[in-house]
Amino acid sequence: MKIRAAVLEEFAKPLVVQDVELQGPQRGEVLVRLVACGVCHTDMYTASGVDPSGYAPTVLGHEGAGVVEAVGEGVTSLAVGDHVVTLFSPQCRECVHCVSDKTNICLAIREEQGKGHLPDGTTRLSRIGDGGEPIRHFMGTSTFAEATVMPEIALAKVDPEAPLDRACLFACGLSTGLGAAMNTAKVEAGSFVVVFGAGMVGLGAVAGARLQGAERIVCVDLSADRLELAKGQGATDVMVGGPDAVDEILEMTGGFGADYTFEATGNVKVMQQAVEAARMGWGLCTVTGVAGKGETLDVIPRYLITGRRVAGSSFGGVKGRDQVPQLVDRYMAGDIDVDAFISHRITLDEVNKGFDLMHAADGIRSVIEFA
Amino acid sequence: MKIRAAVLEEFAKPLVVQDVELQGPQRGEVLVRLVACGVCHTDMYTASGVDPSGYAPTVLGHEGAGVVEAVGEGVTSLAVGDHVVTLFSPQCRECVHCVSDKTNICLAIREEQGKGHLPDGTTRLSRIGDGGEPIRHFMGTSTFAEATVMPEIALAKVDPEAPLDRACLFACGLSTGLGAAMNTAKVEAGSFVVVFGAGMVGLGAVAGARLQGAERIVCVDLSADRLELAKGQGATDVMVGGPDAVDEILEMTGGFGADYTFEATGNVKVMQQAVEAARMGWGLCTVTGVAGKGETLDVIPRYLITGRRVAGSSFGGVKGRDQVPQLVDRYMAGDIDVDAFISHRITLDEVNKGFDLMHAADGIRSVIEFA
Repeated sequence: MKIRAAVLEEFAKPLVVQDVELQGPQRGEVLVRLVACGVCHTDMYTASGVDPSGYAPTVLGHEGAGVVEAVGEGVTSLAVGDHVVTLFSPQCRECVHCVSDKTNICLAIREEQGKGHLPDGTTRLSRIGDGGEPIRHFMGTSTFAEATVMPEIALAKVDPEAPLDRACLFACGLSTGLGAAMNTAKVEAGSFVVVFGAGMVGLGAVAGARLQGAERIVCVDLSADRLELAKGQGATDVMVGGPDAVDEILEMTGGFGADYTFEATGNVKVMQQAVEAARMGWGLCTVTGVAGKGETLDVIPRYLITGRRVAGSSFGGVKGRDQVPQLVDRYMAGDIDVDAFISHRITLDEVNKGFDLMHAADGIRSVIEFA
Repeated sequence: MKIRAAVLEEFAKPLVVQDVELQGPQRGEVLVRLVACGVCHTDMYTASGVDPSGYAPTVLGHEGAGVVEAVGEGVTSLAVGDHVVTLFSPQCRECVHCVSDKTNICLAIREEQGKGHLPDGTTRLSRIGDGGEPIRHFMGTSTFAEATVMPEIALAKVDPEAPLDRACLFACGLSTGLGAAMNTAKVEAGSFVVVFGAGMVGLGAVAGARLQGAERIVCVDLSADRLELAKGQGATDVMVGGPDAVDEILEMTGGFGADYTFEATGNVKVMQQAVEAARMGWGLCTVTGVAGKGETLDVIPRYLITGRRVAGSSFGGVKGRDQVPQLVDRYMAGDIDVDAFISHRITLDEVNKGFDLMHAADGIRSVIEFA
């Protein structure tokens, strides 16, 4: 079938929206008609050419939601008409990681996904015409497109009542933030929490800390607008970031530091602040941001010896097929204000505008709505 | 009373063994007649003058064991004749840390202890003669001496059958290593464990991992002699350290890394190896070594994001009054080979020889035996 898709043709150039060929689903695969897709930093990061594992041509996009249009042979957990959220982090339920409760990093299709292939080592995307050049998939999702073919294990079936233009945010940033607080850190009720960064992930962590019953949630960012949004998600205190942030947090906590800190900026200096603002004795710093190549988080070992811990979170520790539907249910129950994150609604043809808005730090999320 | 003690008179100079004055125990304090005391790196570190929080004159020593000779007013948990291990890390059982199961860092007397005082802000040690200059305590213990006065909350009452020349090692290094594996990391049965460093702490971590039921325990050190000792403590594999250590561990674990790694060297480059040798998904790196001033553990954030955690351990997370007696019981039950750690037996007058042996990395522990 012919679909419109946003292709990364060349690094650091605008995406080219064009018709491409999409083959039908093979064994274990599912054809999804996209309804909505968020524009995330990771898409822009790869488009920029800075990501050392990036490649082109490829159809970008990974924060998608849509409706199952066809299923390949052997697909048992999904049927035509199901509403789904796409998972760049799949869940096979069989590998050594999936059967462990310690991690959500499924190993089943990791290698081929990293190469831009579906699990069988080929692509369903190609240029128009017989024998058209294959186009690689991106993060196993390629959701900057009217439709995509994905492995069954990389789709979460969600409540069909959930509006897909909101549900799509659970495909990446929002689940990452919520999960960092709820799964990775397992914030305890009554805790003192600090979240560095009030983008999609940081705001998700604020919301997650609130859902866990934290008593104080301090959000640190440079933007007054974003700090306002943080209040809406449950931050009890907001703080403009800077070199004094750690001292201010120590002052707020009787010199001890916070029970839980979260870093959602990708800035290694802020990561260091998140470590140093964590509480002596038991403070846990959870890092979620992607740092630049070659950059390191420099930890003074004394902070560790005196009881702080440092963890990282990938997709919020969320096992996608099991837990994304649960998070969507919490949204439907009124526990999470998703609307507040959607700052712009755009068409697929306007995808580069989504990147521009992100560059300008204008709003939290642009969501592509497919006609 | 007049006692012989090893006084740090001047940094980077030999300790001076001499008579000093020791006052009797005040309220909440206990007079202990030392029977044995290990010579630990921390003593040498302070003597060298490199420790920024060091001071002189002071009576060094903190790895002591002895017999209660007198108790001050209000002391209820100890009586004359009790056998005790000294605790530089006390346990008041009342502060916010002591009542938490997340940390062993008691806050009760932290500040005065750091200044070289007993909890009331004074010292029991002074130079001989009326109005003799006060001499500060060290780590709240000052056990390079025939006797010491310590707070009740800093003494662990142990099995009177336990030989005190072995029990003293539970006052610091051995408990730190055992506890890092048993309390801080909580090594699970069947795990793959790597311990970097085969000094007292590292060997203790090897023994602790064995007691927790680890399946593979790899010990990494530069000394063949120490690696032999590691085998005696339960290491299933030994490895000479170097730049390839991480690659070798990845190779031994199918590319994944170890479930638990421990760093017991104080070398920040080795700490980094311990982080990078930890398993994707859930590997926990526990740092126990004291790094040099200004040195940092540089962590590539990607290692965290993909599921590794970093923790630190002070005194092995051991709540001293509760758990040191339990560890001594495990020794008495034959679970821990303490004899293997004692490489030299010396007198108090030979204390500087203990430092020399440590400098030369000759053996694991010199134990001072008091006549």
